[in-house]
Amino acid sequence: PHVPYAPTRYPGDVMLRRSREFYTLMNERRSVRFISPEPVPREVIDYVIQTAGTSPSGAHTEPWTFMVVADAEVKHKIREIVEEEEEMNYRQRMGDKWVSDLRKIRTNWIKEYLDIAPYLILVFKQTHGIHSSGKKKTHYYNEISVSIACGILLAALTNVGLVTVTSTPLNCGPQLRLLLCRPTNEKLLMLLPVGFPATDATVPKLTRKNMDDIMVFM
Amino acid sequence: PHVPYAPTRYPGDVMLRRSREFYTLMNERRSVRFISPEPVPREVIDYVIQTAGTSPSGAHTEPWTFMVVADAEVKHKIREIVEEEEEMNYRQRMGDKWVSDLRKIRTNWIKEYLDIAPYLILVFKQTHGIHSSGKKKTHYYNEISVSIACGILLAALTNVGLVTVTSTPLNCGPQLRLLLCRPTNEKLLMLLPVGFPATDATVPKLTRKNMDDIMVFM
Ligand SMILES: Cc1cc2nc3c(=O)[nH]c(=O)nc-3n(C[C@H](O)[C@H](O)[C@H](O)COP(=O)(O)O)c2cc1C
Ligand SMILES: Cc1cc2nc3c(=O)[nH]c(=O)nc-3n(C[C@H](O)[C@H](O)[C@H](O)COP(=O)(O)O)c2cc1C
Repeated sequence: PHVPYAPTRYPGDVMLRRSREFYTLMNERRSVRFISPEPVPREVIDYVIQTAGTSPSGAHTEPWTFMVVADAEVKHKIREIVEEEEEMNYRQRMGDKWVSDLRKIRTNWIKEYLDIAPYLILVFKQTHGIHSSGKKKTHYYNEISVSIACGILLAALTNVGLVTVTSTPLNCGPQLRLLLCRPTNEKLLMLLPVGFPATDATVPKLTRKNMDDIMVFM
Repeated sequence: PHVPYAPTRYPGDVMLRRSREFYTLMNERRSVRFISPEPVPREVIDYVIQTAGTSPSGAHTEPWTFMVVADAEVKHKIREIVEEEEEMNYRQRMGDKWVSDLRKIRTNWIKEYLDIAPYLILVFKQTHGIHSSGKKKTHYYNEISVSIACGILLAALTNVGLVTVTSTPLNCGPQLRLLLCRPTNEKLLMLLPVGFPATDATVPKLTRKNMDDIMVFM
């Protein structure tokens, strides 16, 4: 059945102010690779994940699992897996061009933040679901849906002053899935270390494209 | 070069309140297929698009183009293309299973909102870029990056009380790209009609998964 829908409505000037303020807030977001070990309230993380779970998804399949790792030993095992694969990625798999494209960001395969961040959020996409009958349930556009949910998750983190670096650990998916005991229909899409920025955190000096370079009006 | 980074920091109780309020706001979001013809201030749309443009992207490639269509004739041509393809999708391409999975949402190939919504936002992913030298520039993970940007865009729309329905028009990309004169390195990823909800708007009665079904803590 369908039900009436009437979300909050704002007067024109309030809309404009809200749109400007939200832009200002989101424009503060940066990918941060220096995260503080300071604890972060667990309840805040719960709300952030629940917020991601409000995302739209193809045919309302909600094809996501957010694995939140706080355990120091598990974090360290994740770090070992990621660093081993990333070293091979940088040295062999990515090619000179990719490595040189990353030079200005100065990333490499050492990922201290995987030990230090109070939480690691591993985002899995469910490539299919399973009906109560045991039959496979198709998850249309699952990668797009989960990525949209990650965008909403990033907005939720930024809104509370937490930082992360969006990463898609190449070739680590199968080992991390086994380590974390996720079922075979789940594939790792992103790994997000979450916390406060370190007090001496730095970020690459980057600029964003101008409005005119990203928007075309007709 | 790297620069210091110190975003706004909130006390614990403020973080918690902000995380809860943002969840409440985002949880109000629904995909709305009945959009009001009422005009929406153009400046608000500009901020929404700029907000999407703050998204992270693989190797900072910013591989997105947001095409905002307000012109009634162009909107109508878009509708014709989408409805023609969607009718074939529903009747022939999607298969009985997909069509039956969509039954509870009661969607079909008639998309009045494409004429009625004050704006259509067509989101293109740039599968590669072009260096000033004319050489191809690789866009790592472009589809994921653009989908994350769409998640942030949806958050920005929701934050100002505007609605949309996220859609990935199957098989319409090439024709819409030609209609809108986008270059060949751009592929249509999503089409978002944007406006206020119609006063008699309804949405399918859906529930979202529980916290425990989307989050695993370790
Ligand atoms: C990748 C993607 C593709 C979608 N495609 C369509 C579509 O083609 N037509 C449509 O009416 N809804 C589409 N939707 C919207 C979903 O049906 C909707 O998000 C879902 O039913 C959950 O409802 P909600 O967004 O109101 O929470 C799509 C959503 C996503 C994320
Ligand atoms: C899909 C995707 C994958 C990314 N992968 C990595 C990664 O593996 N390692 C890393 O340090 N940053 C990664 N990033 C972060 C980008 O480098 C970063 O978003 C970009 O440089 C822009 O900087 P900003 O996020 O501070 O605006 C990734 C971002 C996206 C969207």
